[in-house]
Amino acid sequence: MSEINHQVVVVGAGFGGLEFTRALAEAPVRITMIDKRNHHLFQPLLYQVATTALATSEIAWPIRHLLRKRRDVTTLLANVVGIDRPGKRVMLDDGSALAYDTLVLATGARHAYFGHEEWEPFAPGLKTLEDATTIRRRILLAFEQAERETDPVKRQALLTVAIVGGGPTGVELAGTIVELAHDTLRGEFRNIDTRSIRVVLIEAGDRVLANFAPEHSDYAEKALERLGVTIELGRAVTRCDADGVVFGDKELAAKTILWAAGVAASPAAEWLGAEADRAGRVLVAPDLTVPGNPEIFVIGDAAHVLRPDGRPVPGVAPAAKQQGKHVAALLKARLAGDATPRPFRYRHDGDLATIGKRAAVIDLGWLKLTGWPAWWLWGVAHIYFLIGFRNRLAVSLSWLWIYATGQRSARLITQGDEDKV
Amino acid sequence: MSEINHQVVVVGAGFGGLEFTRALAEAPVRITMIDKRNHHLFQPLLYQVATTALATSEIAWPIRHLLRKRRDVTTLLANVVGIDRPGKRVMLDDGSALAYDTLVLATGARHAYFGHEEWEPFAPGLKTLEDATTIRRRILLAFEQAERETDPVKRQALLTVAIVGGGPTGVELAGTIVELAHDTLRGEFRNIDTRSIRVVLIEAGDRVLANFAPEHSDYAEKALERLGVTIELGRAVTRCDADGVVFGDKELAAKTILWAAGVAASPAAEWLGAEADRAGRVLVAPDLTVPGNPEIFVIGDAAHVLRPDGRPVPGVAPAAKQQGKHVAALLKARLAGDATPRPFRYRHDGDLATIGKRAAVIDLGWLKLTGWPAWWLWGVAHIYFLIGFRNRLAVSLSWLWIYATGQRSARLITQGDEDKV
Repeated sequence: MSEINHQVVVVGAGFGGLEFTRALAEAPVRITMIDKRNHHLFQPLLYQVATTALATSEIAWPIRHLLRKRRDVTTLLANVVGIDRPGKRVMLDDGSALAYDTLVLATGARHAYFGHEEWEPFAPGLKTLEDATTIRRRILLAFEQAERETDPVKRQALLTVAIVGGGPTGVELAGTIVELAHDTLRGEFRNIDTRSIRVVLIEAGDRVLANFAPEHSDYAEKALERLGVTIELGRAVTRCDADGVVFGDKELAAKTILWAAGVAASPAAEWLGAEADRAGRVLVAPDLTVPGNPEIFVIGDAAHVLRPDGRPVPGVAPAAKQQGKHVAALLKARLAGDATPRPFRYRHDGDLATIGKRAAVIDLGWLKLTGWPAWWLWGVAHIYFLIGFRNRLAVSLSWLWIYATGQRSARLITQGDEDKV
Repeated sequence: MSEINHQVVVVGAGFGGLEFTRALAEAPVRITMIDKRNHHLFQPLLYQVATTALATSEIAWPIRHLLRKRRDVTTLLANVVGIDRPGKRVMLDDGSALAYDTLVLATGARHAYFGHEEWEPFAPGLKTLEDATTIRRRILLAFEQAERETDPVKRQALLTVAIVGGGPTGVELAGTIVELAHDTLRGEFRNIDTRSIRVVLIEAGDRVLANFAPEHSDYAEKALERLGVTIELGRAVTRCDADGVVFGDKELAAKTILWAAGVAASPAAEWLGAEADRAGRVLVAPDLTVPGNPEIFVIGDAAHVLRPDGRPVPGVAPAAKQQGKHVAALLKARLAGDATPRPFRYRHDGDLATIGKRAAVIDLGWLKLTGWPAWWLWGVAHIYFLIGFRNRLAVSLSWLWIYATGQRSARLITQGDEDKV
């Protein structure tokens, strides 16, 4: 066997980076996987950690454990601080540098506040495990404080949750928080009735789940309203602070505000000094390379990619995985001497969202489902995509338990990152 | 039914406070349970969270959930800041006060540094869930940093764990950390062999497990050494800092130091202005009341109580539970008109400690066990005492999984309280 000299560096072990690394098995390369976290996170279920249904460890796995059998892969927990394009090096926070022949940036996205970063302390978003435990703490603490509050106006503000953004995350949070209050916490307080909670879902557009078919938005709105969620459409949020949220001419007193609106890409474009769209995503060529640097790829939420019809590829797990696979195939072809650029083609598998524990909408194009059949299919699909038998079993057990008893197992208020409020 | 006017306030929902509340079911009183946490913690298994075997939510339960069926109990999440003995009021951090007819202080203990509080940032102890996730983060981060470290001396310091204190917690941590390195993490790193970890257990006395029979200390020392733990006896620690630990004339370079030595009581004695022992525990009368205030009881780790032979009652869960039961019985008798003071009598059920996943020592007096029968009995006993079917099932599943595969499910590095190092 000849010596392997081609060094691949992957930054980010989300869905895209991990799929790329997997698809590159057996290729004549050495891979270094860098992530600033030690774990891969199953983001689609993060809202369930935020709402006490799942434990953090049920949806996160050590990256180096996932890649342990790949002797060609070295996993590093490190912060990237820059990229030296001419020198082909990734710069790390300890001053060291890693040389690459091929670089794949799969650094994902954070939530963004449309230029109002000052809202963040009052309206945490949901992208990391710490975000989820922060939101869990806020929600549970609001009930605890309401139990002690004697002023009825202050108490109502404590029992009001404003959710900004009517996409799948906002819809899923709204449904689950209502159920938490109505089923799980009911009867455990003496001075408040947890069912008097007010959950308000605020969406600037004219319907929730804007990416879905209009009839599904309709269904979701009705299902949410049946659960007791108030839906506010057509007005954008213009202020968030310790007292609540302002949208249009309305002012809502809410001690808990959750941000499920904009996302912004991680600093990949900055590291590269490359052109980016307004959300900070790198404008890549059709083959996902960075213009002028065919050895650098950007994939997943960090990349701005268009579909043939001109719409952007959505920031969802399947899109990131498809891009990871595409880049792996392209690199393998290159290593075999075929340097033809192959454009990435996105295949849209469908959209899913749940509303509480009995309703969901699924739109696979050829199949549109609502109600409990959709809910069960959603559950089976998520269990299937979870990594590892142990977690499939644990999450199945947690869900069956909640389904049967209404009780949630991870109702912990723990101190996390210092709260800024 | 006559109106119930007797107000009982319990501070602390640990083993003592919870058992007291349970034993008081059906008594003609109203109870307010105050805790600064929202959860009861099963402390005996906390070291398993610190060493990635169990998730936080597997050993902690919301207090108000545990007491949900008790309509006579109001649960409050609040910080006590003082006690007004003449006015019979508990002062809370929001400036409010709670009146009591009977007060039970079951506020537990923290770890203490024998007057060297400056060691705490370098040598975290293990009493809360946050302590456990801090220790988990430190241990996992040390391996991650060692993987990136090229200087062999610095690398060895990163792969050295010093544990201060040879009681059950120190012994259990030492055994589990070695197994984590040898079984769970093995083969997942490319630049280090995790089996080169050095775990040093430092005990100032002349044997580990000083509360056990000498032959059990012997057995535990041999079992630990067989696992690869270095035991250092007879020298007290005189310095802890970012470089390591000094004991006697020895200096050990260790990036991870864990504190399993002294405990100090919570501020109950301070709140009361009552007499306390050197560790801060309130010197209570034989019936567990505070001298001069027959309506105030102190139980569990916050109380200094002697056995008939003059030795102190140990700070273990069964002792706290027995005291909770005793005070409940005494209060019931009082409410029925019988004010005889009844001295508390401690019944020692035995001592248990595990060493890794195949050995344990159990000393029940009438039964002394070592080896795997002790380990299995230990496991069954802990599952039995866990609260709630859901957690029994979850912990059993986690343990069977580790036993069968060596894999641990909660290997997460999450940011918690700001690290002070």
